[in-house]
Amino acid sequence: MAALTLHPDRLLPAEPGVRAIARRLYEQVADRPIISPHGHVDPRLILDDQPFADPASLFIQPDHYVTRLLHSGGVPLTALGVGEGPLSEERAREAWRLFCAHWHLLRGTPVRYWFESSLAEVFGVAERPSAGNADALYDQVAAQLGRDSHRPRALLDRFGIEFLATTDDPADDLAAHRALRDDPAVRTRIAPTFRPDRYLELGRPGWPELIKELPGDVGTYAGYLAALEERRRYFVSLGAVSADHGHFDAGTEPLPAAEAGRIYRSALDGTVTPREATAFRRHMIFEMARMSCDDGLVMTLHPGVWRNHHPDTLAGFGPDTGHDIPVQVELTAALQPLLDRFGTHPRLHLVLFTVDPDVYSREIAPLAGFYPAVYAGAPWWFLDNPSEIRHYQRAVTEIAGFSRMSGFIDDTRAFCSIPARHDMSRRLDAGFLAELVATHRLDEDEALDTLVTLVDTQPRKVFKL
Amino acid sequence: MAALTLHPDRLLPAEPGVRAIARRLYEQVADRPIISPHGHVDPRLILDDQPFADPASLFIQPDHYVTRLLHSGGVPLTALGVGEGPLSEERAREAWRLFCAHWHLLRGTPVRYWFESSLAEVFGVAERPSAGNADALYDQVAAQLGRDSHRPRALLDRFGIEFLATTDDPADDLAAHRALRDDPAVRTRIAPTFRPDRYLELGRPGWPELIKELPGDVGTYAGYLAALEERRRYFVSLGAVSADHGHFDAGTEPLPAAEAGRIYRSALDGTVTPREATAFRRHMIFEMARMSCDDGLVMTLHPGVWRNHHPDTLAGFGPDTGHDIPVQVELTAALQPLLDRFGTHPRLHLVLFTVDPDVYSREIAPLAGFYPAVYAGAPWWFLDNPSEIRHYQRAVTEIAGFSRMSGFIDDTRAFCSIPARHDMSRRLDAGFLAELVATHRLDEDEALDTLVTLVDTQPRKVFKL
Amino acid sequence: MAALTLHPDRLLPAEPGVRAIARRLYEQVADRPIISPHGHVDPRLILDDQPFADPASLFIQPDHYVTRLLHSGGVPLTALGVGEGPLSEERAREAWRLFCAHWHLLRGTPVRYWFESSLAEVFGVAERPSAGNADALYDQVAAQLGRDSHRPRALLDRFGIEFLATTDDPADDLAAHRALRDDPAVRTRIAPTFRPDRYLELGRPGWPELIKELPGDVGTYAGYLAALEERRRYFVSLGAVSADHGHFDAGTEPLPAAEAGRIYRSALDGTVTPREATAFRRHMIFEMARMSCDDGLVMTLHPGVWRNHHPDTLAGFGPDTGHDIPVQVELTAALQPLLDRFGTHPRLHLVLFTVDPDVYSREIAPLAGFYPAVYAGAPWWFLDNPSEIRHYQRAVTEIAGFSRMSGFIDDTRAFCSIPARHDMSRRLDAGFLAELVATHRLDEDEALDTLVTLVDTQPRKVFKL
Repeated sequence: MAALTLHPDRLLPAEPGVRAIARRLYEQVADRPIISPHGHVDPRLILDDQPFADPASLFIQPDHYVTRLLHSGGVPLTALGVGEGPLSEERAREAWRLFCAHWHLLRGTPVRYWFESSLAEVFGVAERPSAGNADALYDQVAAQLGRDSHRPRALLDRFGIEFLATTDDPADDLAAHRALRDDPAVRTRIAPTFRPDRYLELGRPGWPELIKELPGDVGTYAGYLAALEERRRYFVSLGAVSADHGHFDAGTEPLPAAEAGRIYRSALDGTVTPREATAFRRHMIFEMARMSCDDGLVMTLHPGVWRNHHPDTLAGFGPDTGHDIPVQVELTAALQPLLDRFGTHPRLHLVLFTVDPDVYSREIAPLAGFYPAVYAGAPWWFLDNPSEIRHYQRAVTEIAGFSRMSGFIDDTRAFCSIPARHDMSRRLDAGFLAELVATHRLDEDEALDTLVTLVDTQPRKVFKL
Repeated sequence: MAALTLHPDRLLPAEPGVRAIARRLYEQVADRPIISPHGHVDPRLILDDQPFADPASLFIQPDHYVTRLLHSGGVPLTALGVGEGPLSEERAREAWRLFCAHWHLLRGTPVRYWFESSLAEVFGVAERPSAGNADALYDQVAAQLGRDSHRPRALLDRFGIEFLATTDDPADDLAAHRALRDDPAVRTRIAPTFRPDRYLELGRPGWPELIKELPGDVGTYAGYLAALEERRRYFVSLGAVSADHGHFDAGTEPLPAAEAGRIYRSALDGTVTPREATAFRRHMIFEMARMSCDDGLVMTLHPGVWRNHHPDTLAGFGPDTGHDIPVQVELTAALQPLLDRFGTHPRLHLVLFTVDPDVYSREIAPLAGFYPAVYAGAPWWFLDNPSEIRHYQRAVTEIAGFSRMSGFIDDTRAFCSIPARHDMSRRLDAGFLAELVATHRLDEDEALDTLVTLVDTQPRKVFKL
Repeated sequence: MAALTLHPDRLLPAEPGVRAIARRLYEQVADRPIISPHGHVDPRLILDDQPFADPASLFIQPDHYVTRLLHSGGVPLTALGVGEGPLSEERAREAWRLFCAHWHLLRGTPVRYWFESSLAEVFGVAERPSAGNADALYDQVAAQLGRDSHRPRALLDRFGIEFLATTDDPADDLAAHRALRDDPAVRTRIAPTFRPDRYLELGRPGWPELIKELPGDVGTYAGYLAALEERRRYFVSLGAVSADHGHFDAGTEPLPAAEAGRIYRSALDGTVTPREATAFRRHMIFEMARMSCDDGLVMTLHPGVWRNHHPDTLAGFGPDTGHDIPVQVELTAALQPLLDRFGTHPRLHLVLFTVDPDVYSREIAPLAGFYPAVYAGAPWWFLDNPSEIRHYQRAVTEIAGFSRMSGFIDDTRAFCSIPARHDMSRRLDAGFLAELVATHRLDEDEALDTLVTLVDTQPRKVFKL
């Protein structure tokens, strides 16, 4: 059996002189609390604090980062339990076996890195997964899942998560968040995030039914706006710090109110055209910025994804199952109307995420390097890996400086990977800063100050914590 | 005279610790057989086994990688014999002299690297080419070209080429391939590749005449489809493993059969519009995928090139003379119809090449990281160089892992450069893997296994050898 | 107080072996004269040779590289005196204090690097700027500004600037250039640059008035062409070597003369449409290339910038105040008409700049690697930083070789930063070449020859000095 070990210098630069600097820097932030202002952990997981059911439903079944890699290598999603409810032990064990047998598919990916960290640090796994040891590892992990030390709240404490934002539907009553807020045993601050995408896309099937879940009279455009404003205030009252927006493009062109009202009515009638629905959605992103200036919610934007690229997989397994594919993004023109109006507004924080890495140096950094409202969101989703993180660091820093970065965002639903993801970011930040020190572009005291800022101060500032 | 020497560690990482790992890895694959599943060697070169005529017609005249560099530096293509038949010794020598005198134009390019390897390893050249030694080098190379040791078959063996695919017209009778297949003295497996581009572009001048070269009744759309299917089967019967497609864009939208038939008839009548021709071509790429699912031919796609950008050069010297220029590529939307239907088909292998490197991380890797049919084609043409290969390795591996790579493709008509091109790839793969080992992201045994896979197993799997 | 020191190896590669090579190379070019073929220094600065007024108006007020970074960090442009005339000492001192207090915003940017070099080398500053030492540094710099040693001409000599091009309006009488040419005390060759953008954009507000500043009868299209030709000749007569063109896109489609004339008349009438104005401007770029073939002016093109993205800032502070934002660029199609006609013309030098780095490998290098007229312009504006310069070096060299590069362009209005900008480029060129030597792709004598060429020979050749 090959050993699975975590080298203390992993991910630090290979050159010994630079590594020594990076190590000194990293040590100063390695144990800092985790601030996670954007992610997809279910608040009921923390509220209920039930033990995780089994290794497969913890590590594999819900994590499209993993299942898409196995799928591309020929493993059917059915065999991994994707889109299903709880798995029998037999099926969980089978999914875990497939995962271990295909461990080699993860080589060179960040998923592998996160897994190694989680397995070794959280479950004490010391062997490289393989077909041969799959059952033994399953038993080892499963045994610990039954212990109090590995229930969600215990892990939350152990991981040192100081702030954790979830992602929530505007119509959600946030009962779990309310209960968590009122529970003195929960030391982590857990906050909802306002995610209204579905309500802004008038052409979606079922939209007229959907908006009935909003409060008040949504039979008029004015009532719809008021309902969204009210729900935002409600989210704020329960600790929300941001509103998150993910649409196909980044358009923000406002419409005259009368035109917005007309399109809204046609959507209620079921006669809205795709072109009108797109215009309305872009208008609403502008409106969302206006509301953010009022209620203070940080606005995060992540355009540029073709959702559910493979219809058969959507039909069989549901959304978020690994077949969302990036498309090219344009921001300079798309955001101009919003920034024209709100780009220097003192209450607006607009964090721009992308899965098209070309826009870091071409658009995001130049925008963030002028507009006080704009921050360059950390690499996200497909780009949350060492190479793209280094690309982001270089592209953004050279043009806009460190102060325009958002700080790290883990964006994950894989609970056990949260510390590994933040740790990867800290190591890469340390390595990048060490390169600047080694090439005499920054003094080491400045590098350390910058690193602490990136890990701690900056996310608090950007997300108004 | 400056020496020309090949350092044993060339192209390996500069940092001594990483280099030591890379060297250990490289040594394990340096002498592995060459698998070349896509290229442009003429099969009659091997069949006839005639000595190469002279250094210029071997190294310069047919190789647009070289001639465009000299042209950009002010050397007229006429002086290099581009687009001509056999050169007199005087003209060959003059072309060679121009090449040697402009050797500095190749600094920093992969062409220089390939040349150095070919000259040193195949012809024992030990001096850096220059105006001063051009004639002496010409004589040195020319003398060896006359020997049996330097005839095509001898070089084929010496280079260790186990599999070599050519690129062929669907109407070709493949007589050379048939003869090679039946010749027990040829140890290399030489296979044709089905390249139907011209037949799918209804708007090309002369298309109605061209398709008459296809068998059967091509007076109807159904007959045309049948003819293409038959030619594909014929290619398969003579060892073809792939069909290669290079059009301006990557569109794959199918048409209703009646509409396809209507456009086909209008093309026969000479009344097809450019828009119709484009729609038909995109439809046919979808059809080609369907046929690949039937007959098993691997489908390789390389969109995004503006062919013959300089009309005067086309008129004077013909196509493939160095003025094809890349354009931006879009794949996520373009391939969606094809992948919707065939993306999980067990017989489809779709290898995506690009000369727009932006799509590696934005589109190709995400597609290959979900669809079992999709492989990320190795950097090709303008991108077949150390920097872009490193970019590809990082972009694809981080998102989709090593298992979704195609393995190396030399794509060359420069026969003597084949081993140098594969060797460059092996060195760069070893260096990339060594970096992962040095930063503790991969154990060395895994790195070695991965390297052997990339060099040997993966191209066999992807190209169904 | 933290020290500000310039390490002799700054910006050279961190790996000791590579650094040693880079240092040897760099030392050979460190003190070479500066050739600056594109920039924005006001010729009257040199002509009048008045002392610089104060540290803020020298270093901060006019430099949008600096002011946009401070603005993004929350410093109002008013506080920095942007867009104003001369500052009182009180206001200058306050701007300087804000700058020093926000020194950390510059970490990781090239602006910081340029500042450190300027402060240390030109003014002997040995302390890192901060709120605490702002007044002392102000006094230290201000005292030297009063000395003869720090007047513009003295600095011009001290910086070793052999050639300096300014940027000038076609209607400018170039009186300052004439006086400089006739002044034997000016050792630097100072040349105007023909920058006709405003005259080619018929749809600009005030265009009908603007063109009346051109000589002759501009009431007809023919007269307009003649006027531009005459102004070009006048610029040439006073030493101009290039014409510079910066429009939104790179289109070069010629129009029939009658159509151009029709649009021209409609612009005089004030009835031109945006579409017509764009078509005319693209036509005129083609015409500018034709004129360059006649009069020999090098043609520099830098498309792809959304000017004045924030209208309020434009209204309050004027143009060139930090809110120009890049957009995506397309060159292959856009330049095809121009290159079809003039791409092999022996008198055309077309230098392609970009702020969209994607086009280096996809379009610029392939174009420059075929067309003798095309050169790959050095990274410019947002891309004038170590990471993007390295990207450019790799992208262009691998595809087109060193001989197709333009040589460095500082493009600055920040007079004191000129030597630091060229020094950064020389260090990065040395480092890049050292990497090629260390990986055995180039011999050290070739690397040195290449470096000298890049620093000295190439800009003279490309800009016909």
